[in-house]
Amino acid sequence: MNRIIDITELALRDAHQSLIATRLGIDDMIPACEDLDNAGFWSLECWGGATYDACIRFLNEDPWARLRIFKSLMPKTRLQMLLRGQNLLGYRHYQDEVVDRFVQKSAENGIDVFRIFDALNDLRNIERSVQAVKKTGKHAQGAISYTVSPIHTTQAYVEQAKRLVEMGCDSICIKDMAALIKPQAAYELVRGIKEFCGEQTRVQLHVHATTGVTMVSLMKAVEAGVDCVDTAVSSMSLGPGHNPTESFVEMLEHTGNATRIDLGRMLHVKEHFSKILPRYREFLSTVTGVETEIFRSQIPGGMLSNMESQLKQQGAADRMHEVLDEIPVVRKDTGYVPLVTPTSQIVGTQAVLNTLMGRYKVLTGEFADLMLGYYGAAPGELNPEVVEMARRHAKKEPITVRPADLLEPEWGKLRAAALPLEGCDGSDEDVLTFALFPQVAPKFFAGRHEGPRNVGKDPATGASETYIPEGHPGKVTGPVTYTVTLSGQQHKVTVAPYGQE
Amino acid sequence: MNRIIDITELALRDAHQSLIATRLGIDDMIPACEDLDNAGFWSLECWGGATYDACIRFLNEDPWARLRIFKSLMPKTRLQMLLRGQNLLGYRHYQDEVVDRFVQKSAENGIDVFRIFDALNDLRNIERSVQAVKKTGKHAQGAISYTVSPIHTTQAYVEQAKRLVEMGCDSICIKDMAALIKPQAAYELVRGIKEFCGEQTRVQLHVHATTGVTMVSLMKAVEAGVDCVDTAVSSMSLGPGHNPTESFVEMLEHTGNATRIDLGRMLHVKEHFSKILPRYREFLSTVTGVETEIFRSQIPGGMLSNMESQLKQQGAADRMHEVLDEIPVVRKDTGYVPLVTPTSQIVGTQAVLNTLMGRYKVLTGEFADLMLGYYGAAPGELNPEVVEMARRHAKKEPITVRPADLLEPEWGKLRAAALPLEGCDGSDEDVLTFALFPQVAPKFFAGRHEGPRNVGKDPATGASETYIPEGHPGKVTGPVTYTVTLSGQQHKVTVAPYGQE
Repeated sequence: MNRIIDITELALRDAHQSLIATRLGIDDMIPACEDLDNAGFWSLECWGGATYDACIRFLNEDPWARLRIFKSLMPKTRLQMLLRGQNLLGYRHYQDEVVDRFVQKSAENGIDVFRIFDALNDLRNIERSVQAVKKTGKHAQGAISYTVSPIHTTQAYVEQAKRLVEMGCDSICIKDMAALIKPQAAYELVRGIKEFCGEQTRVQLHVHATTGVTMVSLMKAVEAGVDCVDTAVSSMSLGPGHNPTESFVEMLEHTGNATRIDLGRMLHVKEHFSKILPRYREFLSTVTGVETEIFRSQIPGGMLSNMESQLKQQGAADRMHEVLDEIPVVRKDTGYVPLVTPTSQIVGTQAVLNTLMGRYKVLTGEFADLMLGYYGAAPGELNPEVVEMARRHAKKEPITVRPADLLEPEWGKLRAAALPLEGCDGSDEDVLTFALFPQVAPKFFAGRHEGPRNVGKDPATGASETYIPEGHPGKVTGPVTYTVTLSGQQHKVTVAPYGQE
Repeated sequence: MNRIIDITELALRDAHQSLIATRLGIDDMIPACEDLDNAGFWSLECWGGATYDACIRFLNEDPWARLRIFKSLMPKTRLQMLLRGQNLLGYRHYQDEVVDRFVQKSAENGIDVFRIFDALNDLRNIERSVQAVKKTGKHAQGAISYTVSPIHTTQAYVEQAKRLVEMGCDSICIKDMAALIKPQAAYELVRGIKEFCGEQTRVQLHVHATTGVTMVSLMKAVEAGVDCVDTAVSSMSLGPGHNPTESFVEMLEHTGNATRIDLGRMLHVKEHFSKILPRYREFLSTVTGVETEIFRSQIPGGMLSNMESQLKQQGAADRMHEVLDEIPVVRKDTGYVPLVTPTSQIVGTQAVLNTLMGRYKVLTGEFADLMLGYYGAAPGELNPEVVEMARRHAKKEPITVRPADLLEPEWGKLRAAALPLEGCDGSDEDVLTFALFPQVAPKFFAGRHEGPRNVGKDPATGASETYIPEGHPGKVTGPVTYTVTLSGQQHKVTVAPYGQE
């Protein structure tokens, strides 16, 4: 008897976010949905901050409509999203009522599994979202942002997992966004969580493929008892993306473990995305193949290119190695924050400033906020001298409370600001879009009636295709019907603004 | 105390053979040599059939001169070649004296480790080369061509390994050219060899990366006690190539195993090939990323594209799925030959003919020879009806002797035919070039004085660069001096035709 290992397929969210800058349009996903829904996945990740942002910023797609399309085309499999705790899908803390409403609407529109993380691993930034998910009856997955530092020990992570379980999380995710988790570390962490929190604790491992070692980490995690892993269909895998789903399925042969995946279905999915991907060539990540330098520098690929362009703007492109030496200093002063959005940008920018202007001669507002606790509690000890500099610079006192506790109720204000916007339909979903992306939402609302825009281009001619759903009535006031051809048969899929379904 | 795992670096042979059709020119390899030689590898694979062929066919490089350059620039590390047993580097069986002379000259010019394989795993086709290597005092590595079939059991491979050890091989290589070996199979095979042949038996694992599972197979092989593995620097890895060296080194952390590799050196090597590779874009394999279908079809990528173009020529491109169904039938009739050069082409072409003309209505000469034993003994039972058809078609009787036993002495004849050729310098090396590639050698000898030709192109302008070594005197009659800049210092490297050094 094989033990069953579950899989979360990432094609519809993290895979295209990592490989083609989140530009995949809904019409290029629809043809894969039937196969994905029938391939035997535990869940399909399909929604998150970057996809939401790209929908309204680049694709003129309503992210909520996209979610409803997914739900109607993939009714059998859990739909999963990535949630930045108290930040939701935005870049600041939101007051608790906004968190509650966002989670409730996401569940109503189709999300079954919420993966919730905080960049600093400050669990106070996760707790409200977890409670909100529990209220909807959906699956709350608490995530550990994985990094490597002197204070990030297996034991520390295991204790964090225990607190997430006690908080009510239905499962634990080890979220290794920088492909740092090596095989033995993966084995020890999964085993540690199982032994400390109980063997029944459901553990999932999310890894990227960037460093070339994490397929092996997945195997060691399986040996340690992991319940579910994250992979992406092979034609949307590797490089800064993830390990290939089909290879994961194949590699388990004769190990006493197996998946439920139908490889015939996955061949269709693979071929579909093979055909689609060349149309997005201009967005393709410049990182291809494997990068192992991150084990030494601790710097994710995206952060490196950010700093390079900052230096170039200052005419100091030749000083990169000084910045690379400065980063560990800054990171130590922050109490070893994991380097992930937004902390990677904050630490990187401060390291650039320290190099060019002298150490902490100039502080960014974000860096000061980080040092003063406004993003949450740091994992380790902050450098008190740098905290003092931040206090003087920002003219604010350090805080130790949960940052969101300082926020006034804001739902009413957000609603009042959103409703008068041209094209805003008055729904809570629209208010949330405005709350999350106040700069982008007004333009999106005003132009939404033009319908989804596909930014892929014919690789031969360079021509764009604009996707107009059949029967698109201009301004979306009623249900829209998409004609979808699957396995040679035409299906009509009707998607209505929420409340009309 | 960590157990040391040795590594053979493939950048200079199999990596560029797999990724850019063996087109890498010597001037694009020279700048990496010092770092490669000092990086701590057990051996550097740098010579084989395809590199020899490409040297004289496309690059106007004398493959023996290339080998001497490698030896002079990389004196510290073993140089390794791949030898097709009785076929040497050519496409037919050679008489034993030719085998002896080829091996002797290869050793004299710089080869330290000979990896010797036969496509059918007929050890009679390997034995003479092994004996020849032993006479030179160099390292003879006996290779098992790995495939998957009902008769290719772990036990059968283990027994083959035992016979290779008894033959005098200094080590055993499991050669998985199609990336078929899954983690558990790798574990069992390495463990099986160690237990059956003795723990002191040196075992090396060669895998390609194509299916996305073999990095994990390397880890399981390490756990099973493998002594050495094959990898390629990350910027020349993955796709149809191999697993990245740096990732292999990193993934062993805290496992009780370690390598001797200097990652600082490897960063230089990586950056060098990153810069070089775009110049060879036109030769880049169309297979990128991962292909797992081979687990079902048993068909290596190269074979598939061959058959596709054969079908297209016959206006029957739509019949590919029939051919795919026919291949297992043909392969079974041949006694389950591994599908590797030349058997992959022979089986593939016959499957195409069977599909288009009716099963075995038309036989190729090569297929008949395969069925009649002229390539050696098949791994399993041949279909006697198809053997009878082959006998009638080829008007030859089946043989059971070692094919090379039927050959008359031929060295004198080869020498007599080669020496009069314009530009032939009369050396045994030139006679061997003629023996191996009789169609290509005459043109190469005649034009050799023009010097090496680099077929890379500037990726921006498309301009070619022709590499003329400093002081190249036109016709190569005396030593040639290359000026090599390594770590900012200039070194003079003098390479003479063999016998003048």
